[in-house]
Amino acid sequence: MRNTIKRLAVLGSTGSIGQQTLEVVRALPHQFHIVGLAAGRNIDLLAKQVAEFKPRFVYCHEKKAHLGNIEYELLPLEDIARHPDVDTVVIATSGKSGLSPTLAAVKAGKNVALANKESLVTAGEIITSEAKLNAARILPIDSEHSAIWQCLHGERQKTAKIILTASGGPFRHYSTAQLNEVTAKQALKHPSWQMGKKVTIDSATLMNKGLEVIEAHWLFDMPYENIRVLIHPQSIIHSMVEFIDGSIKAQLSYPDMRLPIQYALSYPERWPNPQLPRLDWSTINSLTFEQPDLDTFPCLGLAIEAGRKGGTYPAVLCAADEVAVELFLSQRIKFVDIANLVQQALEQHQAIAHPALEEIVAADAWARQKVLQFISGDNPCFSP
Amino acid sequence: MRNTIKRLAVLGSTGSIGQQTLEVVRALPHQFHIVGLAAGRNIDLLAKQVAEFKPRFVYCHEKKAHLGNIEYELLPLEDIARHPDVDTVVIATSGKSGLSPTLAAVKAGKNVALANKESLVTAGEIITSEAKLNAARILPIDSEHSAIWQCLHGERQKTAKIILTASGGPFRHYSTAQLNEVTAKQALKHPSWQMGKKVTIDSATLMNKGLEVIEAHWLFDMPYENIRVLIHPQSIIHSMVEFIDGSIKAQLSYPDMRLPIQYALSYPERWPNPQLPRLDWSTINSLTFEQPDLDTFPCLGLAIEAGRKGGTYPAVLCAADEVAVELFLSQRIKFVDIANLVQQALEQHQAIAHPALEEIVAADAWARQKVLQFISGDNPCFSP
Repeated sequence: MRNTIKRLAVLGSTGSIGQQTLEVVRALPHQFHIVGLAAGRNIDLLAKQVAEFKPRFVYCHEKKAHLGNIEYELLPLEDIARHPDVDTVVIATSGKSGLSPTLAAVKAGKNVALANKESLVTAGEIITSEAKLNAARILPIDSEHSAIWQCLHGERQKTAKIILTASGGPFRHYSTAQLNEVTAKQALKHPSWQMGKKVTIDSATLMNKGLEVIEAHWLFDMPYENIRVLIHPQSIIHSMVEFIDGSIKAQLSYPDMRLPIQYALSYPERWPNPQLPRLDWSTINSLTFEQPDLDTFPCLGLAIEAGRKGGTYPAVLCAADEVAVELFLSQRIKFVDIANLVQQALEQHQAIAHPALEEIVAADAWARQKVLQFISGDNPCFSP
Repeated sequence: MRNTIKRLAVLGSTGSIGQQTLEVVRALPHQFHIVGLAAGRNIDLLAKQVAEFKPRFVYCHEKKAHLGNIEYELLPLEDIARHPDVDTVVIATSGKSGLSPTLAAVKAGKNVALANKESLVTAGEIITSEAKLNAARILPIDSEHSAIWQCLHGERQKTAKIILTASGGPFRHYSTAQLNEVTAKQALKHPSWQMGKKVTIDSATLMNKGLEVIEAHWLFDMPYENIRVLIHPQSIIHSMVEFIDGSIKAQLSYPDMRLPIQYALSYPERWPNPQLPRLDWSTINSLTFEQPDLDTFPCLGLAIEAGRKGGTYPAVLCAADEVAVELFLSQRIKFVDIANLVQQALEQHQAIAHPALEEIVAADAWARQKVLQFISGDNPCFSP
C-alpha cells in the first residue's frame, strides 16, 4: 500500500495561517509529516514548533537564533520550498516575502497551498504559467478561493461567473466623513474573522477583496468582467460560482480558516476533523446581502482597475497599500489616506506589460519609496 | 463524430413538469429528439405536442383519442419506457401511475429523469436495486434532489448530512386552529412555486417535504438520521449537503423547474440556455431559515416515520395522502384531516417488510379503501 502521508513545509509557521495549519496537523497526526518550518522574527514560538514537530529543515529570519537542541538543517526559504522531500508547501508568509518561495515551489512542481495573496496578485502571470509548465498545483487557502474551488470541483465546463463574498468589514455603512475619523484600534476589530493586522486593515478598506478579485482572475482563469463582489456580513457563504445554465453553487461554513487550510491539504479527499465546527442551523436565522459601496471604499475599485490593466500595476497596488497600512497603524496617516496614497502611486506609475520578476520587484520598490515621498512633508494632504 | 442528440420519451407530457420539459427541448432543439410522448386525459394539448414534436411512439389514456394526422405508433407506457430507441425517459406522470414505467425504464438500463415522487417513495428498494443491477441512472428532477445531486457531483466521500430546504408553504406560522379553517383555494396558492394541485397541497401540509426525505434516502443512500429539513421561505437555496469535514455546499437559483429538468437532461454537462433566469443579487437582500414545526404540520413527521419503518408503510402513506388530498380539494374534509386520515391509515396497517411490487400495489389499494371507509359516515371526526 502506498504511503499517503503528506510531507509538508510550512513557510510562515508562526503567523495566523501558519499556526492554524499546525492545528490541523495536530488534529490529524497520521495524515502529515512536517518536513520544514520557516518563520520571521517570532523565535520563541518557532522554537516551540521545532521542538514539537522536529522538522528536518528550518528557516529563520534571525539566522543565529537558538531554537533548542533539536537537530535540523538551516536552509533558505526557496530551498525548503523546492526540496525533493517536500510534497506540499504551505505559503503562509505575508507580504512580498511569499513571492520567491512560491515561485521556487511552483517551478519544482510541488503542491502549493497558497495563503499569501501578494504572490498571485503581483506575479499571477508568471506563477500560473510556471505552474502549468511544471505541473504544479496551486491549492488556494483563502476562504473565498477555497469556496470557489470547492464549488468548481467536478464541474467540466468553464464557469459563467464568480461571486466573491465580503463581510464588508467593521466600517460597513460608514460615510466618508465617518471613515475620516476612524482609529487603527477600531479598524483592527473585524466583525467575523480573526486575522493578522495587515489583512484586517485591508478588510476594513475592502482592498483585501480587491486583491482577492485579482487572485480569482489568475486562479480560475476568469475575466474580470465575470467576477462580482457581494457584501455578506455574516461570512457564512464564503463565495459562489454561477454556471452557464444559471445554476449557482455556494460553499458555507462558520468563518474558521482551519477548514480551507485542511481542504487544501486533503484535496481531492475530505477528512473528518471533529475540531472543525459544524453550522448550527437552529441559530442561523438570516443571511443578508448588499452591493459594495465603491465610492466610500475606493480601494476595491482601485484594485480591480489595477488588475484589469495588469503589468506592474498590481505590484504597485500591493506595495503602496502595504506601506500605507503600516503608516496608518503607526498613526501617521488617516484611514482614508490609504486609498489616496495607493491611488496616487498608481496614477504616477509608468507600467510595464508582462513584466519579468525583476521588473515586478523594481515596481514594488518604486511604489514603497513613492508613498513615503508623498507623506514626507511637502504634501499637505497627508499629516499625522 | 458521435451523434450526441438525446432521444427522449416524456411520460406525462401534458402535466406541469412535462410541459416544462418540452420548453427546455424547444429552447435547445439541437440537443434532443422527442421519440415518445405520453399523457392522460388532456387530449387537446397532447395532440398539439404530437403535431409539434412528431414522436414515433405515443401513449394516451383515452385509447381512441384522435391526435391529428401525424403518423405514430400507440404503445403502452412501459413499452415506450423500455424501447431501444429511447436514451432517456422523463417520468413526469403524477401519483402511482409512474411506478410501472419507472421500473420498466430502470430494468432496461435507461437514464431515468425522475419527477414522479411516488415511485421512489413506495418502491425505493426495488427501483434502486434494479437500477444498480441494470446500470440504469436515476436523474432526479425535483429541485431539492437536483440541488443535492449537483452539490455531490465530483465529491468522492460519502456525505455527512443532507439539508433539504422547504418553502414552508402558504400556511407557515399558522396555528392548528387557523389551519382548521383554511380552504382549498387558499391552500392552492403556493408562495414560491407554480406546480400541480396535488403537490401544491402536499407543500402546504409539508407532506411533500416528507416524501422528499424518503426520496433522498433512496437516491443518495443516506440514513434518515442524517437528513434534515430546514424551512427557507424564499426558495432560493434548493438544498444543501454537509461533508465530513463540516464544509457545506448549497445550490441556488430562482424557483424555476426548467433548471433541474435541464440539468437532469444535460448531466454531466451543463448547457447555456438564455431562457433560464439568473439570480439578480441586487434584489436579494436576505435569505431566511427556520426550523419546521412538526406539531402543527404532522404530515412531515408521519412521512419520515413511515420512511424509517419502511416496508409497505410508505405505500400506505402515499395512497392515503393522495385520497385525502382529493377529499380536501372536493371539500369533503378539512385541511387538518389530511394528516389525521394518513395517520389512522398508517396506524391500522399491517406492514410487510421488503415487499414485492404486488404487495406494494395491494397496500396502496388497502389504504385508499381504508381512507374512504374512515370518512364514510360512521366516523364522526370527518364531516363535510
